[in-house]
Amino acid sequence: MRMAMIGLGKMGGNMARRLCRGGIEVVGYNRSPEIVNALAAEEGMVPAGALREAVEKLTAPRVVWLMLPSGAPTEQAIEELNALLEQGDVIVDGGNSNYHDSQRRGATVAKAGIGYVDAGTSGGIWGLDNGYCLMVGGARDAVALVEPALKVLAPAPERGWAHVGPVGAGHFTKMIHNGIEYGMMQAMAEGFALMKGKSEFNLDLAQISELWRHSSVVRSWLLDLTADALKQDQQLDDIAPYVPDSGEGRWTVVESIDQGTAAPVLSLALSMRFTSQDEEGYDFKLLSMMRNAFGGHAVKKAGE
Amino acid sequence: MRMAMIGLGKMGGNMARRLCRGGIEVVGYNRSPEIVNALAAEEGMVPAGALREAVEKLTAPRVVWLMLPSGAPTEQAIEELNALLEQGDVIVDGGNSNYHDSQRRGATVAKAGIGYVDAGTSGGIWGLDNGYCLMVGGARDAVALVEPALKVLAPAPERGWAHVGPVGAGHFTKMIHNGIEYGMMQAMAEGFALMKGKSEFNLDLAQISELWRHSSVVRSWLLDLTADALKQDQQLDDIAPYVPDSGEGRWTVVESIDQGTAAPVLSLALSMRFTSQDEEGYDFKLLSMMRNAFGGHAVKKAGE
Amino acid sequence: MRMAMIGLGKMGGNMARRLCRGGIEVVGYNRSPEIVNALAAEEGMVPAGALREAVEKLTAPRVVWLMLPSGAPTEQAIEELNALLEQGDVIVDGGNSNYHDSQRRGATVAKAGIGYVDAGTSGGIWGLDNGYCLMVGGARDAVALVEPALKVLAPAPERGWAHVGPVGAGHFTKMIHNGIEYGMMQAMAEGFALMKGKSEFNLDLAQISELWRHSSVVRSWLLDLTADALKQDQQLDDIAPYVPDSGEGRWTVVESIDQGTAAPVLSLALSMRFTSQDEEGYDFKLLSMMRNAFGGHAVKKAGE
Amino acid sequence: MRMAMIGLGKMGGNMARRLCRGGIEVVGYNRSPEIVNALAAEEGMVPAGALREAVEKLTAPRVVWLMLPSGAPTEQAIEELNALLEQGDVIVDGGNSNYHDSQRRGATVAKAGIGYVDAGTSGGIWGLDNGYCLMVGGARDAVALVEPALKVLAPAPERGWAHVGPVGAGHFTKMIHNGIEYGMMQAMAEGFALMKGKSEFNLDLAQISELWRHSSVVRSWLLDLTADALKQDQQLDDIAPYVPDSGEGRWTVVESIDQGTAAPVLSLALSMRFTSQDEEGYDFKLLSMMRNAFGGHAVKKAGE
Repeated sequence: MRMAMIGLGKMGGNMARRLCRGGIEVVGYNRSPEIVNALAAEEGMVPAGALREAVEKLTAPRVVWLMLPSGAPTEQAIEELNALLEQGDVIVDGGNSNYHDSQRRGATVAKAGIGYVDAGTSGGIWGLDNGYCLMVGGARDAVALVEPALKVLAPAPERGWAHVGPVGAGHFTKMIHNGIEYGMMQAMAEGFALMKGKSEFNLDLAQISELWRHSSVVRSWLLDLTADALKQDQQLDDIAPYVPDSGEGRWTVVESIDQGTAAPVLSLALSMRFTSQDEEGYDFKLLSMMRNAFGGHAVKKAGE
Repeated sequence: MRMAMIGLGKMGGNMARRLCRGGIEVVGYNRSPEIVNALAAEEGMVPAGALREAVEKLTAPRVVWLMLPSGAPTEQAIEELNALLEQGDVIVDGGNSNYHDSQRRGATVAKAGIGYVDAGTSGGIWGLDNGYCLMVGGARDAVALVEPALKVLAPAPERGWAHVGPVGAGHFTKMIHNGIEYGMMQAMAEGFALMKGKSEFNLDLAQISELWRHSSVVRSWLLDLTADALKQDQQLDDIAPYVPDSGEGRWTVVESIDQGTAAPVLSLALSMRFTSQDEEGYDFKLLSMMRNAFGGHAVKKAGE
Repeated sequence: MRMAMIGLGKMGGNMARRLCRGGIEVVGYNRSPEIVNALAAEEGMVPAGALREAVEKLTAPRVVWLMLPSGAPTEQAIEELNALLEQGDVIVDGGNSNYHDSQRRGATVAKAGIGYVDAGTSGGIWGLDNGYCLMVGGARDAVALVEPALKVLAPAPERGWAHVGPVGAGHFTKMIHNGIEYGMMQAMAEGFALMKGKSEFNLDLAQISELWRHSSVVRSWLLDLTADALKQDQQLDDIAPYVPDSGEGRWTVVESIDQGTAAPVLSLALSMRFTSQDEEGYDFKLLSMMRNAFGGHAVKKAGE
Repeated sequence: MRMAMIGLGKMGGNMARRLCRGGIEVVGYNRSPEIVNALAAEEGMVPAGALREAVEKLTAPRVVWLMLPSGAPTEQAIEELNALLEQGDVIVDGGNSNYHDSQRRGATVAKAGIGYVDAGTSGGIWGLDNGYCLMVGGARDAVALVEPALKVLAPAPERGWAHVGPVGAGHFTKMIHNGIEYGMMQAMAEGFALMKGKSEFNLDLAQISELWRHSSVVRSWLLDLTADALKQDQQLDDIAPYVPDSGEGRWTVVESIDQGTAAPVLSLALSMRFTSQDEEGYDFKLLSMMRNAFGGHAVKKAGE
């Protein structure tokens, strides 16, 4: 199988590597040619200097897999591909797109007979070696065309891919996956903070996280990673208490609102990230002010 | 009526003032004699230099009202009074005691025939002029003995006191009152933060809080105070984003757990105060570390 | 002043009444003519049988105030008015529209020189007698044209209206108002449930809610209403534990997500409503199933 | 090594089995003799008809491991053992005791020179085959005496036990473990409910939970169990939406309050269980009543 991989960043680069090593001929394109050249040299990837060139190096039916930032870069690439590709070709969006966008894009390119597959991708930087978890949405024949690549990216016996539904269902499933991830992470972080807060026990959090990896109810990959990291450093003095968030945690809460389905913990896990990002703390300042106003309680001054 | 007021701080001092002005003869005691002397000079309060002296200046049946910090100071005063008072006298605890303590203390002094009234007190620094809201627990005859003072502290037509149940019920009701207060305050603070966050509208939060005071659904005393404060300053640059908490918010959540009755918003309002008090942010540091571990996401360094 | 009121339901009907009684000539239109006729007979309102007729009964510069369900009915009326009105006329949307819609609609009608005022309205069924709270967005001259009506709907000295910002700012402010309302209501409901749950004290919740109305920190209009209702019935046996929600609580949480500003309690208050609406409880069923799976804990069967 | 196992229920019975199979001589006692006789017949366990008899069948230094319900049964057994054992013997509490109780009990028996080990135990019904996760608190020499049993219960290379700190630290660590478990479970349940709520995608939740087990970020033992259960039945129609809770989730929140360390998601996960257990829904009834009171919104009647 020959296919194109567009976007060779942290995720796309590793996926291209894994595909090359698995016997897939990958035509790769990235905005910065250095990465393209490096992958060509290291992995035998076929280099392309432009999206158009990548397409031209394929034969019908073409498979073009995008690993681009969601939003404008993905939107633009799909618009361009809509003009370049022809009936029977398939676009795969492996990025973190909002599933509503995927539904819309799938419908748009379908008018030209182009297939659309949304492949929600989990596994992070570990996917190169361990394989990825791919949640795939799309029509049956479009997915079939992509299947050889899916098998390399997420091989048996640890089968890490599945066709979960129509276009949009892949990114929807990935979105929920990440929403759950937010909640699990927050639960774990709170528990470790409580253990650290119990200073009289002087607990060794590296020891405990390692311990819990064996036969406990909370054993999980997130715990594996936490244990590894705490072995290096459990004070975390160098890390700022600031937690970024990306689209999918937010979209999960919006989905909860759209459905009217309660997701209190997933919503709260997101709110806590916002709180961590908020350097002003206007809400807290107001609360302090109110306490002073009704009870005469002293206000802690800024900088104190 | 003659009674003693023990503890003449921010709350007790104003209550003594209000009682004196309302025709009650108040024997007042405070650890620092300056306050005692000042109230004696200004309000005609009868000064006492010790708890024992205050008791000696009363005639049976005696009413001794405590406005002391909850915990050790209140505990100690009640132990002392248990020895000083006699059958038919009444101790009133107007402080912020845990209702379980009040139940225990009431049972202890009852053995000596001493009545016990727990008077949960709301109204803050405004009570001197506006009167207080008093949630009173105790036996009927004990409360009857205290009634003249209650009427002065919380007069008609804005009747601000009620006998809500047996010993403990007063402080229980006050505890729940404060739990609700935490939730209402947090709700309001979040709303104002969202308005401040919508910078393109450049909203005047002093104007809006004043506006809402008239005929809106959220009109409330907390809003009145907020509006007054925002008129002075709506940037709040001088205030640290740090919100203390006192016993009653915590006890409300413990009560929820003891009962198995859900109080998700009251619990969360308390958690948010803890978050505001946490200068280390170990939970957030862990989350940032985990994101790095699974996804290679950059960590914001401390001090960045 | 002569103006049109379109939509004479629970809110619009009372507003028309109040305007008529305050000396404004109101041309009123509603889909069902009975309401129109009743208001014409009772209040001297000028009846109109169609939106077009209502417009024709005004003279330039015209003010047309909409009190319609948000969404399609409001959208449609504005489209129609865009064709019927002319430069210098003003549309007022007093309904519960999403502020993004108001911004879009304001921009659309501005092309024809038509002014747009979004008047977020609070006060519910009590506004007829007490006056309303009106949060007004729009250009200065458009608001000025509407001012006589605002003064009647929300008169001094309890001035209940303010011009808070450009088009959209009125509905934005109303949205936040409702978000806060959700949080305050939830806080209060949880507190009362905790008091009911403390059965050994046998608290009279009608008494306590009335008590808190006087000098307490939680005194508020919501408490006033609660006290009135609990006087009638504090068991609430006839009421289902089901809490509907409307757009504005949802939009407040979406705004929090769009801004990245934490609103944990407002989000949770919304989630709790969703939980109350959920008759299946799939989340809880899953939790029960999981407990069984890891711990062998018995599962409560449906219908038990 | 010879030791006693007191309490042979779901957990204790399996642990006795595993110990017998691992070459430990177990003297077992349980209130109902049937279980004792069965384990004697099946596993060669030495039967005892009373706690005293079990102790008498050991030689000093004795190890007596309790697997009893927390609270009164454990308390009583320890009181009895305090009289039966002698200096150098060790009591192990492997049940779910509150760590404050363990600290108190450890201090009590220490007066008689008896060692105390609190062994928080995770692993549920799977521990028999997979081994347990044991979080062990106590003095070094007491733990050393128990070590042969720990090695059988939680063997290398999947080493599932660790000595985490002084008496109390074991149950503390187990408590936090369970608090995290509550949060992780709630996060997962919410995510699956959102997938079920997206009916247009008709997602196969058994397929997705199985898929996520491979290389995803949320892979975990809880997910493994969920996937297994959903393969049998993903409608869950027979399960009531009712989630019990046990002490440790509650104690985790109390710990958060005692420390003043925020645990918002763990607190909320507990509140949600309380909500699931609440058949009256007084909080929701009140909210419905308030909406009616201010806005005239229709109330859903009980039974509708």
